[in-house]
Amino acid sequence: MRLNTLIAALASTALVAPAVAAPLDAPTINRIADQSFQHSQVMQTAAYLTDRIGGRMTNSPAMREAEKWTQGQFKGWGLSNVHLEGFEFGRGWWIENASVRMVSPRPITLRSIPIAWTPATTGTLSAPIIVAPMAKERDFAEWRGKLAGKIVLVTYPAPAKDDEAAAPFKRLTRDDITRINKVEQPDLDPDFDKPRYERTVWPRKLDAFLKAEGAVAWARMSYRDNGLVHGEGYRYQVGDTAALPGVEIAAEDYRRLARLAKTGPVTLEINSNVHFVDTDTKAYNVLADLPGSDPKAGYVMAGAHLDSWVAADGATDNAAGSAIIMEAARILKAIGATPKRTIRFALWAGEEQGIHGSDAYVRQHLATRPLNADPEKAALGPSFNSRTYPVTKLPGYSDLAGYFNIDNGGGRLRGLYTEGNFAAVPMLKDWLSPFEGFDATSVVAAKTGGTDHVYMQTVGLPGFQFIQDPLDYGSRTHHSSVDTYDHLRATDLRQAAVILASVLLSAANSDKPIPAGTTPTQPNDTDPFRYKDPSKD
Amino acid sequence: MRLNTLIAALASTALVAPAVAAPLDAPTINRIADQSFQHSQVMQTAAYLTDRIGGRMTNSPAMREAEKWTQGQFKGWGLSNVHLEGFEFGRGWWIENASVRMVSPRPITLRSIPIAWTPATTGTLSAPIIVAPMAKERDFAEWRGKLAGKIVLVTYPAPAKDDEAAAPFKRLTRDDITRINKVEQPDLDPDFDKPRYERTVWPRKLDAFLKAEGAVAWARMSYRDNGLVHGEGYRYQVGDTAALPGVEIAAEDYRRLARLAKTGPVTLEINSNVHFVDTDTKAYNVLADLPGSDPKAGYVMAGAHLDSWVAADGATDNAAGSAIIMEAARILKAIGATPKRTIRFALWAGEEQGIHGSDAYVRQHLATRPLNADPEKAALGPSFNSRTYPVTKLPGYSDLAGYFNIDNGGGRLRGLYTEGNFAAVPMLKDWLSPFEGFDATSVVAAKTGGTDHVYMQTVGLPGFQFIQDPLDYGSRTHHSSVDTYDHLRATDLRQAAVILASVLLSAANSDKPIPAGTTPTQPNDTDPFRYKDPSKD
Repeated sequence: MRLNTLIAALASTALVAPAVAAPLDAPTINRIADQSFQHSQVMQTAAYLTDRIGGRMTNSPAMREAEKWTQGQFKGWGLSNVHLEGFEFGRGWWIENASVRMVSPRPITLRSIPIAWTPATTGTLSAPIIVAPMAKERDFAEWRGKLAGKIVLVTYPAPAKDDEAAAPFKRLTRDDITRINKVEQPDLDPDFDKPRYERTVWPRKLDAFLKAEGAVAWARMSYRDNGLVHGEGYRYQVGDTAALPGVEIAAEDYRRLARLAKTGPVTLEINSNVHFVDTDTKAYNVLADLPGSDPKAGYVMAGAHLDSWVAADGATDNAAGSAIIMEAARILKAIGATPKRTIRFALWAGEEQGIHGSDAYVRQHLATRPLNADPEKAALGPSFNSRTYPVTKLPGYSDLAGYFNIDNGGGRLRGLYTEGNFAAVPMLKDWLSPFEGFDATSVVAAKTGGTDHVYMQTVGLPGFQFIQDPLDYGSRTHHSSVDTYDHLRATDLRQAAVILASVLLSAANSDKPIPAGTTPTQPNDTDPFRYKDPSKD
Repeated sequence: MRLNTLIAALASTALVAPAVAAPLDAPTINRIADQSFQHSQVMQTAAYLTDRIGGRMTNSPAMREAEKWTQGQFKGWGLSNVHLEGFEFGRGWWIENASVRMVSPRPITLRSIPIAWTPATTGTLSAPIIVAPMAKERDFAEWRGKLAGKIVLVTYPAPAKDDEAAAPFKRLTRDDITRINKVEQPDLDPDFDKPRYERTVWPRKLDAFLKAEGAVAWARMSYRDNGLVHGEGYRYQVGDTAALPGVEIAAEDYRRLARLAKTGPVTLEINSNVHFVDTDTKAYNVLADLPGSDPKAGYVMAGAHLDSWVAADGATDNAAGSAIIMEAARILKAIGATPKRTIRFALWAGEEQGIHGSDAYVRQHLATRPLNADPEKAALGPSFNSRTYPVTKLPGYSDLAGYFNIDNGGGRLRGLYTEGNFAAVPMLKDWLSPFEGFDATSVVAAKTGGTDHVYMQTVGLPGFQFIQDPLDYGSRTHHSSVDTYDHLRATDLRQAAVILASVLLSAANSDKPIPAGTTPTQPNDTDPFRYKDPSKD
């Protein structure tokens, strides 16, 4: 959409809906749009983060470079109080280079990636494979005594699916938004964290079993087809080093290995030249402020995570969000905005390993809650320490008037999730009302999980996330080897910067506070007559 | 679809349409279905060709292995007259291993493939890149004097497209079949071969220009996104060796290079360890017969090309077709079919470089026509020698009663293209009439090009091609790095074998001959008042 179309849309909205009063005056919104459409830096920011720096795994050399570069950008644009806030995370890890090659029965290079935080091979490791699909400890019995000296293919080689249903690149229709506008009530099983716990400790058990059996390495199959790989892994704590090198192999290549293994011996060569970095186990959030005129009015905040996986360049996850946050900061500074409340911009670290950065911010500034009573679980990261009680507010709790998160890929903004906060819906609708011309005025009370608004929201603060057009985030780019700049769209990111800057300024200037949630207390089981169905195990 | 569903479909067809009489008795069709559904070998055949042998470029060691193995299979199943027929083609070429790595401004391995029949690098070649998009000779002027010592990126780095329109995996609806049932009249521009000629000689001109300018290698961008590569190249004649190594780079990786080149120097390392094979410049078609009871009745034939490109394993293009052809042969032998006419099975070579194998068969057995009067064009392959006159029939011309080609991926058969042969429509419909239960009864007179029925059809013989469900052939697998066995579907290939075997037997036993086309003579220009539009050049 072009600027004059937007202006026309704004004008017509004003004519037909005079009762809706956004707290921003029209010239301010239009100056924001002018900055974003005519003087944009958002794609240059995204390009530097992706093309130049590349994948930014927490505590890796690339993430350190990104922490430094983004601070420089904020400072260069005139933001205040630009600084890092450290929190204990674990080790860095990075891939210098790596390859997996089938050498027998015929030579062919496979598409692959080392699994994060698995150890290097010592030079090139050559060994026969065995296909030994394992999903639970009970599966170990079948393979005991058969794995010595082998590269173990641990995934069931599930066949490809016929993806006839939908195009991989998608924008939300009005019907789609109606569908997501559904508030699900929580199902408060006291054992709620059991599946997550089992998923989290399974790789550790498998690695220990493989090591005990004398296996030399392991491989898993990519969960997407068409040659894409991902490489997520989670053993980032010092002292928790996995025993065996692990690789993820593209589905087509993995299935070929599994078929060939039915007809005769198959030998692989794995070269995983990866490195741990233990020099600084702290990860760092990047923070920058646009100071408010009223130091007692508190602040509003927008955030996105700067860290990524490394199969590609972390473009849609989440250089896009980071670039939008930075661009909103640049724009507001460029137009000389003087908000009542401070506007704080946050680029989080450690999101991909369990939302560490924003959790650390909450615990440092907003509210604390006990660690999990089980010390093993307590060590597994924020998600195991997020349903403990009581929640104790810190002095800074009431200073945060609202938090806005961006982490749903590179698509344009279509509205906001209030994350269960019904009371905030009308106010947020008012603030989005100028953007009917972008079809970006939807406010839904539904909850979303898995990113950096969550721990604001779980201590009762007004933490929101933007609705975005999915593009090919779910189908292709999320965590994958094609998460590159190409999958971003300049018009989408520029649109997003306009809306974010406007909403932040509305929030910062609002006479009324954004309604907060309720500070949570220990919930009841919502189904006290619950039984476990043994057939589901 | 399961066997009893098919039988039910056949029974109901017989009830509602008693006037339609296929020349096969019901027990024969049902025994074919039983062989294909209960005793299938088609996926084992496809797996050997793809997983075990892999990509089968004409005259490469893998293609030689496939020629040998397929003959062994035909012989093992009891086919007769199993033999190779050679024709002059050119050199073999194969990739031992290869890689392209960006080393500056940051190290990253790129997805790439050497372009077929380009020469090897001597070890690892390291050089800076220059992005110099060139599409015509007139573009050379801009880059003259700027390419010495460079790896030249010759493709315009076109941005990614929003592929919102359709799912990548598709089956044909009735509406789709109605849409393809359209006969287009030819547009007989006397300069019809100019665009093809220019496309064919352009890589030669570009290579010569790059060499003269002192460039050290060149790279082009993949024409598909999402990390796929292809690697087609066409300089397979001895004495026509390209001067420079060439590689194709995945679109995401290529565009990243192009963006980085706007901000500073970029250095690549290319290692292309490829080999020419000049020991035997003949390519070989594989032929096998199921002998007919009447030696004077001639023969019907089915064919698919055995050769492929090598970015993956040539599964949908065209191990699928080859496996269907071979399976139909196995089935007909297994049920003890005794056709009146001989049924000949052909696995063609050199299809991917311009339909050489079936063209050679036509010229050896069926009809000849002069070579192009321009000797440069004459040397460029069959497509430049296919509109020359007169067509001279050989003694074997009238022996070929019908040819059926399979080369549209791994999808099930949905009917037949008669390729402009209107007269054949009713007879072919009769033969397909048992297969309403597979929605495989469509016969359309439309023409398709680019594969091995073409040169039968252009000398007036009844050369047909099957309509197939596209699956993800057009969107993803055709020539690409994911053309693997996984993208085949066992139920589709088994269905195809049933229909092919039935149609071949119907054709071999038919009392009436399949109506042939007309032996072509020099056509008139269909628009004698044609002018060239200079803005289109």
